[in-house]
Amino acid sequence: MSRTATLRRGTRAFVASATLLAVLVAAVLVPAAVRADEGMWTFDHLPLKQLQERYGFAPTPEWIEHVQKASINFGGGSGAFVSPDGLALTNHHVALSQLAKLSSPEHDYIRDGFFARSRSEELPCPDLELKVLMTSEDVTIRVLGAVDSASADSAQSDQRKAAMARIEQAASRDGLKGEVVELYRGGEYWLYRYKTYKDVRLVCAPEEQAASFGGDLDNFSFPRHDLDFAFFRVYEDGQPVRPQHWFRWSKDGAREGDLVFVSGNPGTTKRLYTVAQLDHERNLDLPLRIRLNQQRLAAYNAYAARGPEQARQARDRIRGLENNLKRQHGFLEALSDTAVMGMQRRAEAKLRQRIATNQAASGLAILTWERIAGAMKELGRRHTEYVTREFGRSSRLLDIANGIVRYTTEVAKPNERRFKEYRDTKLDSERFRLFSRAPVYPEMDEMILGVVLQQCRDELGADHPFVQLALGGRTPQEVARTLIAGTKLADPAVRKALVEGGAKAVAASKDPLIVWARKLDAPYRELRAWNEGRVQSVETLDGGRIARARFVLDGRALPPDATGSLRLSYGKVAGYPQLTTQVPWATTFHGLFDRSLGFSGKPPFDLPASIAGHEQDLDLNTPLNFVSTDDIIGGNSGSAVLNREGEYVGLVFDGNVQSYAWDYYYTEEQARCVSVHSRALTEALRKVYDMGALADEVEGR
Amino acid sequence: MSRTATLRRGTRAFVASATLLAVLVAAVLVPAAVRADEGMWTFDHLPLKQLQERYGFAPTPEWIEHVQKASINFGGGSGAFVSPDGLALTNHHVALSQLAKLSSPEHDYIRDGFFARSRSEELPCPDLELKVLMTSEDVTIRVLGAVDSASADSAQSDQRKAAMARIEQAASRDGLKGEVVELYRGGEYWLYRYKTYKDVRLVCAPEEQAASFGGDLDNFSFPRHDLDFAFFRVYEDGQPVRPQHWFRWSKDGAREGDLVFVSGNPGTTKRLYTVAQLDHERNLDLPLRIRLNQQRLAAYNAYAARGPEQARQARDRIRGLENNLKRQHGFLEALSDTAVMGMQRRAEAKLRQRIATNQAASGLAILTWERIAGAMKELGRRHTEYVTREFGRSSRLLDIANGIVRYTTEVAKPNERRFKEYRDTKLDSERFRLFSRAPVYPEMDEMILGVVLQQCRDELGADHPFVQLALGGRTPQEVARTLIAGTKLADPAVRKALVEGGAKAVAASKDPLIVWARKLDAPYRELRAWNEGRVQSVETLDGGRIARARFVLDGRALPPDATGSLRLSYGKVAGYPQLTTQVPWATTFHGLFDRSLGFSGKPPFDLPASIAGHEQDLDLNTPLNFVSTDDIIGGNSGSAVLNREGEYVGLVFDGNVQSYAWDYYYTEEQARCVSVHSRALTEALRKVYDMGALADEVEGR
Repeated sequence: MSRTATLRRGTRAFVASATLLAVLVAAVLVPAAVRADEGMWTFDHLPLKQLQERYGFAPTPEWIEHVQKASINFGGGSGAFVSPDGLALTNHHVALSQLAKLSSPEHDYIRDGFFARSRSEELPCPDLELKVLMTSEDVTIRVLGAVDSASADSAQSDQRKAAMARIEQAASRDGLKGEVVELYRGGEYWLYRYKTYKDVRLVCAPEEQAASFGGDLDNFSFPRHDLDFAFFRVYEDGQPVRPQHWFRWSKDGAREGDLVFVSGNPGTTKRLYTVAQLDHERNLDLPLRIRLNQQRLAAYNAYAARGPEQARQARDRIRGLENNLKRQHGFLEALSDTAVMGMQRRAEAKLRQRIATNQAASGLAILTWERIAGAMKELGRRHTEYVTREFGRSSRLLDIANGIVRYTTEVAKPNERRFKEYRDTKLDSERFRLFSRAPVYPEMDEMILGVVLQQCRDELGADHPFVQLALGGRTPQEVARTLIAGTKLADPAVRKALVEGGAKAVAASKDPLIVWARKLDAPYRELRAWNEGRVQSVETLDGGRIARARFVLDGRALPPDATGSLRLSYGKVAGYPQLTTQVPWATTFHGLFDRSLGFSGKPPFDLPASIAGHEQDLDLNTPLNFVSTDDIIGGNSGSAVLNREGEYVGLVFDGNVQSYAWDYYYTEEQARCVSVHSRALTEALRKVYDMGALADEVEGR
Repeated sequence: MSRTATLRRGTRAFVASATLLAVLVAAVLVPAAVRADEGMWTFDHLPLKQLQERYGFAPTPEWIEHVQKASINFGGGSGAFVSPDGLALTNHHVALSQLAKLSSPEHDYIRDGFFARSRSEELPCPDLELKVLMTSEDVTIRVLGAVDSASADSAQSDQRKAAMARIEQAASRDGLKGEVVELYRGGEYWLYRYKTYKDVRLVCAPEEQAASFGGDLDNFSFPRHDLDFAFFRVYEDGQPVRPQHWFRWSKDGAREGDLVFVSGNPGTTKRLYTVAQLDHERNLDLPLRIRLNQQRLAAYNAYAARGPEQARQARDRIRGLENNLKRQHGFLEALSDTAVMGMQRRAEAKLRQRIATNQAASGLAILTWERIAGAMKELGRRHTEYVTREFGRSSRLLDIANGIVRYTTEVAKPNERRFKEYRDTKLDSERFRLFSRAPVYPEMDEMILGVVLQQCRDELGADHPFVQLALGGRTPQEVARTLIAGTKLADPAVRKALVEGGAKAVAASKDPLIVWARKLDAPYRELRAWNEGRVQSVETLDGGRIARARFVLDGRALPPDATGSLRLSYGKVAGYPQLTTQVPWATTFHGLFDRSLGFSGKPPFDLPASIAGHEQDLDLNTPLNFVSTDDIIGGNSGSAVLNREGEYVGLVFDGNVQSYAWDYYYTEEQARCVSVHSRALTEALRKVYDMGALADEVEGR
C-alpha cells in the first residue's frame, strides 16, 4: 500500500475512537477551567495554585527567573543554555537547516554528523539568530488605548500595529530588543524584551540516522529511539558568552512519575478558535495545504533522485515536508471527527450562553461569533489564491529577491506604518538573513520555483490576473529557468549593494529576479492588505472581545494560545494505555537494537553504524527517550525538560500521534510530549561519539 | 483508572476505526471467495491453488501427511512432536492446568518453572490426554442418509447423532478412536480417527513470569516478549514413544517475509454465522458472560488475597478468567461496531439474493434464515437460565459429582442415544478425567460454588424453580459449605467405586454432593434437551442448508468454521501498520529488557530473575516473538509454525488485539498470529535454563 494510505489509516484509528469522545465529554465541555496538566503558560502568570494542589510544588521567583533566562528561542524552535561557557542544546531537526547550510558536497554533516573536538573546530552558522527573553510587561492598556473603537476594523488594526511599533521602538535599548506579543487572540498585549545573539557556532550533531532513527514512519510515534540533539556554542565579541543563567545537568535525569517542566517556544495552538475558524481549517485550509505539500514533496523526491548531490541538497526540505504532511493529516482527521466537532459546537454554545446571561461579559462580546464567521466567509472567497500564492520562501533566491524589494520599500516609510517584520527593531535580523553566506542551489531553486508556479496555474487557472502577470504567457518552467539562470543574487555582495542602494537601486536593477519580484510586489501588497484588513483584523478584534468576556466570567483561568514566545508547561513523566496494554514511560538503548532487528535492519530502521559499533561499550539499560504529559506543540522542539530543582533532565523533540489533537484541545489520556533522556545524551557523547569533554562540560565535571 | 476501563477503551480505539470499515468493504462483501491468507483448512482439502498462486508452493502428499501426523491435539490446545523420542512442545499456558495439578504447597511449578534434567525426573501428568489425527474420511452421505427429513427438527437431530455414534463405534479399532466432526455448521460430516496417549510427562516449563511477561496487560498484544512454552514427553508402555512423524528444527527459524504454516486445532469461529446469531451473541450472550466472569474473577482475586497458598491454588483460574474476559470484551466491541454489522447484513442479503436467483441453490435453502432467527428467539427466551446454570465445571468436586451421575446414567442407555461425550468411544477418556489424582482444593471449591449459586439466585431470582431446588431455602454459601464439607469425592477411590458400582451405587450414595448432583440431573437434562432439540437442531439443520447452497454457488471456496479439530493455515511473516508507523515482524531479547526497564521493572513487567541473571550469556539479538498472517483462533495455542520444508520455526501462543475480529471475519490489515521464535526457545534452554540437552534433542545434535 502507499505510504500516504498507511499514514491516514493509522491515524484515523485513534481519532475516530469512542475513547477520544469520552475524553472530550469531560474536557471540551468544561472550557472555563484548565484540564489536568493543560497549559503553555507565560512566565508572568504561572499556574501556581494548580502546581501547589496537584504536585505540592511552589516555584520561587528565583526559580522562575532562572528557568526563563536559561531558555533560548531558536527562531521556530527552542533550546537552552547548558553550560557556563555558552553551550546551547537543541534538537538535531531544529539545527537541520543550519546543518544543511554548513554542509557542502565535500562535507555532509547531516548524513555524517559533526563533532568539534576543540573550540577552534566549532563552525560559525551563517544565519542563526538566538534570543533570550529578559523582561515582560503588560501593555494591553497602552495598545488598546491607542485604538479608536468607532473606526473601521482595518483602521483599528492599523492603530493597534502603530501602537505596537511605538512601544517596541521605545523598549529597544540597553542591548535588548522590544517585541509586543498578542495573547488570547487579541485579549492582551505584552511587551517582551530580548537579548539576541548572532554569532552561534555548531559544536556537535549526530548523524541523521541516529537523530531520527525510524524516519518519517516513527516521527510522532512512541515508543521511540532517537538521539535528536545538536549542541551549539553562543559567542559574543569572539568569545563564548558566560550566560548568567544556564541549566545544571541532573544526575538521574527524568524518572517515572516525576513532575517535570518544559520551557520553550510553542508556535501556534488554536484552542480558542471559534467553530467557524475550525470549519475553515478543516474544509478549506488543510485540504489545500496537504495537496500543495504532497506535490512539492513529490517534486523534491524526484529532484533527489537525480543524484547524490541533489539528494543532499534536498534532504532538509524533504524532512520538513514529510513532517508537515504527517501533522496536517493528523489535524485534518482530528477536525473531521464529527463527535469532536459536536463537542466543540456545544462548548461554544455554552460559552455564548454564559456570556449572554452575564451583564458585564455580554457587553464585551456582541455579535463576535457572527463577525468571525463573516471573516471566514470572506477568507474563503480568496482562500485558494491566498494560500497558493504564499510560495515566496520555497525558492531561496526568490525569497532573497522579495526580501530586498520589500526591505527597501518598507524602510522608506515611517516606522509605525511598515509591515511588522520591517520595523526598525527587526531590521538587523532581516539584514542578517538577507546577507547570509549560506550556499544557494540554483538547480533546486529552479525546480521548486517551476513547481510552485505550476501550482498557481493549476489552482487559479491560466487566466487568473496573478498567473498572467507572473508567467507572462510562458510556462512555469520557462519562467523559473529564465529567472534563476539570470539572477546574480547568489552573491551576498550583490544583495548588500541593492539593500544599501535602497529603493532607487532596486528600481534601477536589471536582475531578472529583482525585476520579477518588483512586478509582483503590488499584487502581494494588495492580497496582504485584504487579508490583514478584512480577515485578521476581525479575528483579532473579536477574538479579543471573546477573551475579555471570558476574563469577566472566569478570570485568567485558561492559558493563552501559543504564539511562538516563551512558555512553561508542567506535567508528569508517565506512560499511557493503548490497545488494551500500556505504553512504557521510557525506551532504552536495548529498544533501539530491538526495533532495528525487528525490521531486519531495513531502512529507515537501519542501525546507525556508530551505535552498532559501540554496542559493547554502551550501557544498554540507559533510558533513551521518554514521555510526559507536558503540554507542548510545534516550536517546542529543543525545549529543556527540567525537574523541580530546575535541573536538565530531557530534551523535547516530538509529541506522539495522539498529541496532534493538542493543536485544538488538550487531553492527557494518551497524548504525550516525547523527549530524549538526559542520560542518553551523555552516554552517547561518551560511548558513541568520543565527545567525553562535551559530556563533562554539561555535567560540570 | 480501573483495569476494565483501560481494556475497553483501548480496544474500542481500533474496532471503531474507519480503517476496519475500509477493510470490510473489501472483505465482507466478497463472501464467495477467501480473503488473502484466510483459512483454517482441513488437511484433506488444502487450498493448493491459492498456495501455488500466492506463494508458488505445492505441498506433496508426503509433506501433508507428515505435518498432519506430527501435530498433536492437546485437548483445547495444540502441540507437536519435536523429537524422535516423543518430545511434545506446546505453550506454557496450555500446560497451565497440568502445572497447577502437579504443583503443591511445596513445589510451585507455575511460579518457579520445572526442569527435568533426566528422563527419570520427568513428571507424569494426572489427566492429560493427547491425540493425533491419523485418517479422515467424508461421511456426509452416511450421516445425512440416516436422517428422515420429514421428521421434526429434534428427531432429525437424534437421527444424526445416532448415525454419528454408529460410525464412530465402527471406526474405533486398530488402536485408533473414531470421531465424527461436523463441518460448515452442518454442511459436511467427516470421520476422524485418532491415536491417543494418556501417559504424558512434564519435561520443562519456564517460570510464569518468563512465559507470560507483561501478564494480562500484554496478553493479545504485539510487540510481545514471552517464552510461552512447555515440553512434555509422550510415553507408551513405560517408554518414550518413537513417533513416525515429528518436526525437525529449523536452523534459522522464522524470517521476515517467509511463507509459514500453522498446524493446530482452532476451537471455534463464527464466520458462517447468520446476522441473527451474531445479534444474539452481541445482545445477550457476551454481556451476560462478561458479567458472570467479572464476578468470578473478583471472587478468585479475593480468594487469592487470603494467603500465598490460596493465591497459588487460584492462579490458573485467574489467568483463564482474565484471558476470557479480555477476549469477550474484544468480541463484544467488534460486534458493536455498527459499520461492521452493516457490512454483515449487506453480505447476508447479497448471499440470500444469489441463492434465491439460483435454481439449484434456492431449493436447498428455503426459509433457513428465518428459521435460525426463530431459534435465536427461542434461545433468548431461556438464555439467562441456560448460561447461568452452566456452572458445573467451576467447582472441581461438583464437576466430578456431575460426571459420576451422568456417566452411570448414560452408560446404561444404548450407545446411539447417549450424550455424545458418553459414547463408548469416549468412555476411557471420561474415566481418565474422573479418576485423576490431581489435587482438590475444597476451600476454593466451596468459595466458587457459593459464588456461582449466588449468581443463579441473582440472575434468575430466588423464586426460580431451579434456584429453589438447588438451594432448598438456604443461602448459596450455606449450600456450598455443606456440600463441600460433607463430600468424600476428593478421594479417587471413592469416585472409582461409584462409577464401577454403576447407577445403583450412585442411587444409593449418601455423599451430599452426589445426592445434590442427582437432584439437579433431571433439570439439567431438561435444559439440555430443550437447547439441543429447539435451538441447536435448527442451527445445524439450517446452517447445513446454507452451507450446501453455498457449495452449489461457489463450490468449497470458503473454509469451514473452526471445530477444535486439526487445521492448516498459511501466511507470511510480516509486521503491520499501526498509528502512522509500522509494527515490526519480530521482537528480540533486547526488547524484553527494554520493556521491563520502560516500566521501571514494576509488575507485570518485572524481568524474570532467571533471564536478568543471564543477560551476559544471552545473545540479545536472538528473535524472541514474531507475527504472521496465519489465520488462527483460540485452540491454536501451542501450534507448530512450519516453513516450506516442514521444519519447526515457531510456536503459536497468541493473536494481537486486532485478531479478536477473526472470530467473525478474517482481515490481514493488522490482525496477526503471534508466536515464540524457535531460536528463542533453544537460546533460552541453553543460556537461561541450563537445559542444553533438551535444546540438543530438538535440534537433533
